Amino acid sequence: MDLTELRTANPEHWAKAAAIRALTLDAVAAANSGHSGMPMGMADVATVLFEKHLKFDASAPKWPDRDRFILSAGHGSMLIYSLLHLCGDAQVTLDQIKNFRQMGALTAGHPENFLLDAVETTTGPLGQGLANAVGFAMAEEMQRAQYGRKIVDHHTYVMAGDGCLMEGVSQEAIGLAGRHSLGKLILFWDNNNITIDGTVELSDRTDQVKRFRASGWQVIEIDGHDPQAIDEAITAAKKSKKPSMIACKTHIALGHAAQDTSKGHGALTDADQMKAAKEAYGWTGGPFEVPADIKSQWEAIGSRGASDRAEWEGRFAEVSKQKQDRFNRAYALDAPKKLSAAVKALKKQVSEDQPKVATRKASEMALAVINPIMPETVGGSADLTGSNLTKTGDMGVFDTDNRKGRFVYWGIREHGMAAAMNGMALHGGIRPYSGTFFCFTDYARPSMRLAALMKMPSVFVMTHDSIGVGEDGPTHQPVEHLAICRATPNTYVFRPADAVETAESWEIALTTKETPSVLSLTRQGLPTVRTEHKLNNLTSKGAYVLADAEAKRQVILIATGSEVAIALEAKAKLESEGIGTRVVSMPCMELFAEQDEAYRRKVLPAGPVRVGIEAAVRDGGWDKWLMGERGQDKKAAFVGMDSFGASAPAGELYEKFGITADATVAKVKNLLG
Amino acid sequence: MDLTELRTANPEHWAKAAAIRALTLDAVAAANSGHSGMPMGMADVATVLFEKHLKFDASAPKWPDRDRFILSAGHGSMLIYSLLHLCGDAQVTLDQIKNFRQMGALTAGHPENFLLDAVETTTGPLGQGLANAVGFAMAEEMQRAQYGRKIVDHHTYVMAGDGCLMEGVSQEAIGLAGRHSLGKLILFWDNNNITIDGTVELSDRTDQVKRFRASGWQVIEIDGHDPQAIDEAITAAKKSKKPSMIACKTHIALGHAAQDTSKGHGALTDADQMKAAKEAYGWTGGPFEVPADIKSQWEAIGSRGASDRAEWEGRFAEVSKQKQDRFNRAYALDAPKKLSAAVKALKKQVSEDQPKVATRKASEMALAVINPIMPETVGGSADLTGSNLTKTGDMGVFDTDNRKGRFVYWGIREHGMAAAMNGMALHGGIRPYSGTFFCFTDYARPSMRLAALMKMPSVFVMTHDSIGVGEDGPTHQPVEHLAICRATPNTYVFRPADAVETAESWEIALTTKETPSVLSLTRQGLPTVRTEHKLNNLTSKGAYVLADAEAKRQVILIATGSEVAIALEAKAKLESEGIGTRVVSMPCMELFAEQDEAYRRKVLPAGPVRVGIEAAVRDGGWDKWLMGERGQDKKAAFVGMDSFGASAPAGELYEKFGITADATVAKVKNLLG
Repeated sequence: MDLTELRTANPEHWAKAAAIRALTLDAVAAANSGHSGMPMGMADVATVLFEKHLKFDASAPKWPDRDRFILSAGHGSMLIYSLLHLCGDAQVTLDQIKNFRQMGALTAGHPENFLLDAVETTTGPLGQGLANAVGFAMAEEMQRAQYGRKIVDHHTYVMAGDGCLMEGVSQEAIGLAGRHSLGKLILFWDNNNITIDGTVELSDRTDQVKRFRASGWQVIEIDGHDPQAIDEAITAAKKSKKPSMIACKTHIALGHAAQDTSKGHGALTDADQMKAAKEAYGWTGGPFEVPADIKSQWEAIGSRGASDRAEWEGRFAEVSKQKQDRFNRAYALDAPKKLSAAVKALKKQVSEDQPKVATRKASEMALAVINPIMPETVGGSADLTGSNLTKTGDMGVFDTDNRKGRFVYWGIREHGMAAAMNGMALHGGIRPYSGTFFCFTDYARPSMRLAALMKMPSVFVMTHDSIGVGEDGPTHQPVEHLAICRATPNTYVFRPADAVETAESWEIALTTKETPSVLSLTRQGLPTVRTEHKLNNLTSKGAYVLADAEAKRQVILIATGSEVAIALEAKAKLESEGIGTRVVSMPCMELFAEQDEAYRRKVLPAGPVRVGIEAAVRDGGWDKWLMGERGQDKKAAFVGMDSFGASAPAGELYEKFGITADATVAKVKNLLG
Repeated sequence: MDLTELRTANPEHWAKAAAIRALTLDAVAAANSGHSGMPMGMADVATVLFEKHLKFDASAPKWPDRDRFILSAGHGSMLIYSLLHLCGDAQVTLDQIKNFRQMGALTAGHPENFLLDAVETTTGPLGQGLANAVGFAMAEEMQRAQYGRKIVDHHTYVMAGDGCLMEGVSQEAIGLAGRHSLGKLILFWDNNNITIDGTVELSDRTDQVKRFRASGWQVIEIDGHDPQAIDEAITAAKKSKKPSMIACKTHIALGHAAQDTSKGHGALTDADQMKAAKEAYGWTGGPFEVPADIKSQWEAIGSRGASDRAEWEGRFAEVSKQKQDRFNRAYALDAPKKLSAAVKALKKQVSEDQPKVATRKASEMALAVINPIMPETVGGSADLTGSNLTKTGDMGVFDTDNRKGRFVYWGIREHGMAAAMNGMALHGGIRPYSGTFFCFTDYARPSMRLAALMKMPSVFVMTHDSIGVGEDGPTHQPVEHLAICRATPNTYVFRPADAVETAESWEIALTTKETPSVLSLTRQGLPTVRTEHKLNNLTSKGAYVLADAEAKRQVILIATGSEVAIALEAKAKLESEGIGTRVVSMPCMELFAEQDEAYRRKVLPAGPVRVGIEAAVRDGGWDKWLMGERGQDKKAAFVGMDSFGASAPAGELYEKFGITADATVAKVKNLLG
């Protein structure tokens, strides 16, 4: 490709874009790792976007009404770092660029939202950024409807490559965006026809233009190196009521010897080739050197939005104090003051009424109390609304004609749902929760992991949480999913035993700020085990003594969720034989692990035999409570699952798999010898 | 909807289809659970397919050259059970129909391949059957190319609903099928416009016809209740060189009061409504009663393929003995006799050469030896071929002009890849293996679980298996994925320490018949730790003493994969101080758990302190070896991860997270007091 024409046609644009390319080449070469080609290919699009369209102020990366810019093709992280550095972002200094991918640098291999304020979302696992973007755009619609366009009126821009579009989650995202006419969502497809293994045709021949149109998108096809075409396309996209996909025909690693090849995707570090590329760009700066005039042009871009922001702040100061407080509270993830009292009142009522309800139903009861006082919650379900029970009466349904609606029918899209929830949380101002069957955690898993990594307090409402599912059988019966969620760092896994613990779990999930929660809830009805009202949130301790030994304490039964009632039944049998038995309810292992040694010792003293009871695999973190914490192998046993389930009525399955009070008693007696 | 016209237009067809509808209503009502509407809606399509097109012999459900019929919308399981019963399948007796969804019945809530011979794949988690079907169709193409169309020449039919098409994995499957022109793959879309939450428009407005065409499919739109249209569409689909999607406009729960509603999706049990529906069908049989003439027509359909099968057996008898043996051996999943010797020779060579290679490279070395003698292996990668190192020179690339190619460029589609691998294994005659980064196990997870549930020995080659990934950072660094895989029942998780253990792991993975394997392999180079050649496959024991204590045994270090070398280094330091230290390499916890008590005790005797070393979370099954098996909490420690990783060079990360010989020594000394 002859660059001369590109250079001479738009010299000022060219120089700015070349700065991205040069910094990318230098940083990747210094790190001797990374991905040069994508930033080099998309530098023109990014330059036009930042220069002419993106509403942002580099000095205030968290300004709520900024446009969002998401790099779904996260491996091209040097694009974002170059842009931020050039625009004068305070965090992304030249030192950070020089330390790309090094220990302690903010310029990690892939863009990480928890390291840099201006990084909207953590990307790298492909397709996620695009699916996050749908959540961002939905959040903007919802808040624009709530606060008016003087306060909320921005676009969500996302850049994705062929990898993002091949990942299945992209279809879920595209379908959602089309369904909801997310007109302020604008996707740039880096159409460079290259993947790691070779040309795209090696693995895909999908006509992306037709594919997007089939789901209700506007598609605009352009030369991704023509600044005027880019500008016009963005202008047209901004006018559309449909989400827009701008197909940008680009050359990966533009101007480098590796241009248009798979090699160009990765780290381009050959010194001579770098030199030749920079010469072709007409680049005069040395390594990591941006000529002052180019830097100052970029800084002007970085401060272009300062006046917009000032005007916005003026407008914000004029809205009612109440609205300001609500807005600020939601963005700060502060729970409303009323929440605690509302939960306490519900707990008191439940402890008195002692209903026998499934914890999914108990969750609905909690949400019915919470949603009216927390307007920032947005709920949903992946086509299991009547099963997950995540919709309360006051929410309204989010739709093209009801942007204030707070409930989303996600369709059969667990993955896209979880990713969009993360997008909403990342956008700010929203606490998203949504449900599916616990077993289908599997589909949502990549985004659930990212919620934990990104420190986003999304709440995953996972009902039908064991063989208690019954007849639907092993495809629908989780046995390893508690283990999966518990093994994931920075994730609270709640498995409440009754309606009281469910309310307490919700309270924690909706007040925590940096940790996602998984609520593991039953299909089947459970008795109320917390029959004595306590003001304190006992679930916040992770585990507590639900019922202490009456006779001399010889046994501690530790159980979660639906198995707590079984533990109580076993205790009654054991006590009737004079065997003193404590029952510990353990709704959240992670929170129990956070307690101090003294409390843990009080709950789990040395001496008694211990039996864990949970309709799931023992690998789900059990051994540390049964054998660790002053326990002993020969004094420990577990009542649970060690295989997949089966299709039969739930009660029969509990018998078949030996998760019963009698089986528990037998194991206790065996341990007592 | 007036059924009279349908009934009178094609009375014979109608009666046969009505038998499916009546049995479905009866079975679901008896179970008081299940899904009536889908079988009732798709009964006409199924009837025409089975009567006029499907090549099968109900008396020989495993006949290798049968057409495959896959119910991706697995909740409609009564469709498949009705068909099998009516056609005279030996397993699906009337008693089984009557015991639908009951304990011990073969007629589980969702169709399960391991319960019924005629069920090709376990479905229920939506989208999986469709994605499996791609693997079935690829397997057929490959084997037709190898054995000729006299031996292999069949179609793959799959029925999917809106739920399947909304799941992201469907896009991956559709893209693959289009890319590879899988003309013998025919999909029926049950286009009933209903999901559980309401009409499809509630969550999706995708034009499925355009979507499929965009990926290179032929699409035929028909009235799904018109037998002639169904017949013509199938005929046209069979002629196409493209995969075909037949969009069948249907009415869910046809003829029932709940027709065309979400309620119709679930269990229809109202006695009066059932009666009215049966009357509308003109159905004269009582509950579970199929009039003899209708049953005999169905049985004729069931035996229609018997002559085809007999002719096929004749043809098969005529091919060379060598081909017959190869075919039969592959279908029986018997490894070739040469495999054992080839692996031993490689091990011997490695133990002598003692290369320092990454285990992903060691895996390539093993495959280079194995693939030439196991023509039934099919390899691939999700666009990371040069990183996963799953392609060996002799394989050839599967493509439209090279159906004999045994390597698949799956594209960036980990989920579709895993599902298609399962499809290949289920089809028979193929041992699939394919790779991605271990962290992206997350994307493939729903299909990896199903491999375990379905007892399919797919091999998932997961490279870049720890913080050893380095600069790519925490999005690409697994820490909880060993825990995830180990918590899943019926899954072998291999984490080999060097090229010898890697070869041994491959040998086990390729000889086991009912268990999928996950190979957790490093990016970074590792020294050879098995420097003394042993004929026996030590990995098959799960764990073994790699290096015993020299001084008096006070310590057992247990390590896997890349951390075994660290354990050896720690041992050297400890021994130099007179602290006798045993190093146990534990490449497969599941296999160690299968060993008898005596062996386990020999490897892990009581007494010494124990430290586990693995660059992953302790929850990954470690406590049972550290504190269980004669261990003790106060004498146990773990060197590993308890958070996500970070972006930096790998060596620095090992230091930062304290996974080093020095850290190990410190923990040992702390335990020794």
